[in-house]
Amino acid sequence: MIYKIIFFEGKRDLKEENSSSWTGQKDAENDTKIIARDWFVELRDRLCSVFEEIEGELKDGPNSHFPPGKFTKKDWQREGGGGGEISIMRGRVFEKVGVNISTVFGVFDEKFRGSIPGTEKDPKFWASGISVVAHMCSPLVPAVHMNTRHIVTTRSWFGGGSDLTPMVTNEIDKEDFHAAMKQVCNSHSPDYYERFKKWCDEYFYLPHRAEARGVGGIFFDNLEGNWEKDFCFTRDVGLTFLEIFPKIVRRNFRQPWSESQREQQLIRRGRYVEFNLLHDRGTQFGLKTGGNVEAILMSLPPIAKWP
Amino acid sequence: MIYKIIFFEGKRDLKEENSSSWTGQKDAENDTKIIARDWFVELRDRLCSVFEEIEGELKDGPNSHFPPGKFTKKDWQREGGGGGEISIMRGRVFEKVGVNISTVFGVFDEKFRGSIPGTEKDPKFWASGISVVAHMCSPLVPAVHMNTRHIVTTRSWFGGGSDLTPMVTNEIDKEDFHAAMKQVCNSHSPDYYERFKKWCDEYFYLPHRAEARGVGGIFFDNLEGNWEKDFCFTRDVGLTFLEIFPKIVRRNFRQPWSESQREQQLIRRGRYVEFNLLHDRGTQFGLKTGGNVEAILMSLPPIAKWP
Repeated sequence: MIYKIIFFEGKRDLKEENSSSWTGQKDAENDTKIIARDWFVELRDRLCSVFEEIEGELKDGPNSHFPPGKFTKKDWQREGGGGGEISIMRGRVFEKVGVNISTVFGVFDEKFRGSIPGTEKDPKFWASGISVVAHMCSPLVPAVHMNTRHIVTTRSWFGGGSDLTPMVTNEIDKEDFHAAMKQVCNSHSPDYYERFKKWCDEYFYLPHRAEARGVGGIFFDNLEGNWEKDFCFTRDVGLTFLEIFPKIVRRNFRQPWSESQREQQLIRRGRYVEFNLLHDRGTQFGLKTGGNVEAILMSLPPIAKWP
Repeated sequence: MIYKIIFFEGKRDLKEENSSSWTGQKDAENDTKIIARDWFVELRDRLCSVFEEIEGELKDGPNSHFPPGKFTKKDWQREGGGGGEISIMRGRVFEKVGVNISTVFGVFDEKFRGSIPGTEKDPKFWASGISVVAHMCSPLVPAVHMNTRHIVTTRSWFGGGSDLTPMVTNEIDKEDFHAAMKQVCNSHSPDYYERFKKWCDEYFYLPHRAEARGVGGIFFDNLEGNWEKDFCFTRDVGLTFLEIFPKIVRRNFRQPWSESQREQQLIRRGRYVEFNLLHDRGTQFGLKTGGNVEAILMSLPPIAKWP
């Protein structure tokens, strides 16, 4: 029943601000939009907070002579409606981590109408979401991606997922990550894990290399039908990420690494760039629809190699 | 009349080898195909030779304590017909330079038929070309790209060009490069330079950044109608590149550079990666048609940053 509590927080927000600048319209849908948006804001705050905490925990070992990183925040407005906030930290554990939230609305360009469910006759859309990509200093700590979003056209659905990209093989991290994702899926529907894991494996794949981007996780989209149920699942995916990724970081971040592991990390990051620029539909769509370039390309690693 | 000399060298080759493995067919067209292919091989040899010479000329200054680089060569076969040779050097002047030649032939997949001139009714194709991308150790030496190609379907044409990507502003390099390209264009047709310079500016452009990849040069395609005239122009573009780029390298490669110039170079290289993976039609086409991945992605810089 947690969503009801958030629901009332959402209502409060609605009174406190000019809601049309966030939601694009004032109607019955507003309540659910505000609940979703507020959750993404809350998750952003909690993620940034735990990532900064981790930065402070590095007392010895590699990079501990550097000061702990802090997030800087930058907002942007979208021509056409809405905007977002980019939170970025360049630290001593997190080499570059971006946590973006955005809530945008408007009408789709003619060339995109029809390619988005529910826009065939009415091109209006509203979308809110959070996106996280972390590239770590240590090659012993996996890179990670998490994104969840709520989209409203004449239809209304949730999408998202999270996947892990270890730089050197680590079976325990992989098992723990998959176990966490399996648990959150199973607590919502018996068929989610199998479907969403498969979807993830298929999506984060580089056909030209015949290689996976990482070890996978879950990926879902077009979750539609029961708003409360779908929102709770989406929220729980965020909460699961909030628990499992810091656990994986803390397990590995103090261990010393070798130059050859660092080299391997930079080459794996090159593949990450290839995936994001060649194949990622979100990146392509964002750039083609005039999205915020800084927010979209925040996923690119701070340094990468193609030796 | 130089093409006639090459013509006879081509004829000699025809007798000396199983020409069908190179050209995919034995007919009157073979002569021109062999002339083009042999020129690309000769240009490759001459470029690799001058680049190795430059490596040997670094007697003092940054990186002179490293041994001079040497090219290594690797050949590949294409499933469906033909193949190519990748020449790559990782040196002390040329941080990573690739000189690829390839001669491939076969039939286009159904999904590409019609998108290539002359394949609407007959999907057969033959293509031969050379492609050069150099990423330099010194941020004071521009990166460069040169490519020329001859394509035969039921039609027959030449394409190519060369463009310069300085990492720090250098007006003299830019002027010299454009002057050389202007000269070669003007010696063949009064309208080439204006057309091909504009084409280059439009092609090597990152719309999402509203930025040019570099300072341009020339770009041409579908040069068709008079085989001898078009071949001579294409050949002269290669010869011009063979003269102007070494001149620009030699002017700059001994000067010491600063850390901040190196940083700027690595960030510019990030943009180069963005262009090649997001926008370059050759890269996209090559990867989609099952081209040789190593040869196609040879253009990616050895190291790049998105800080």
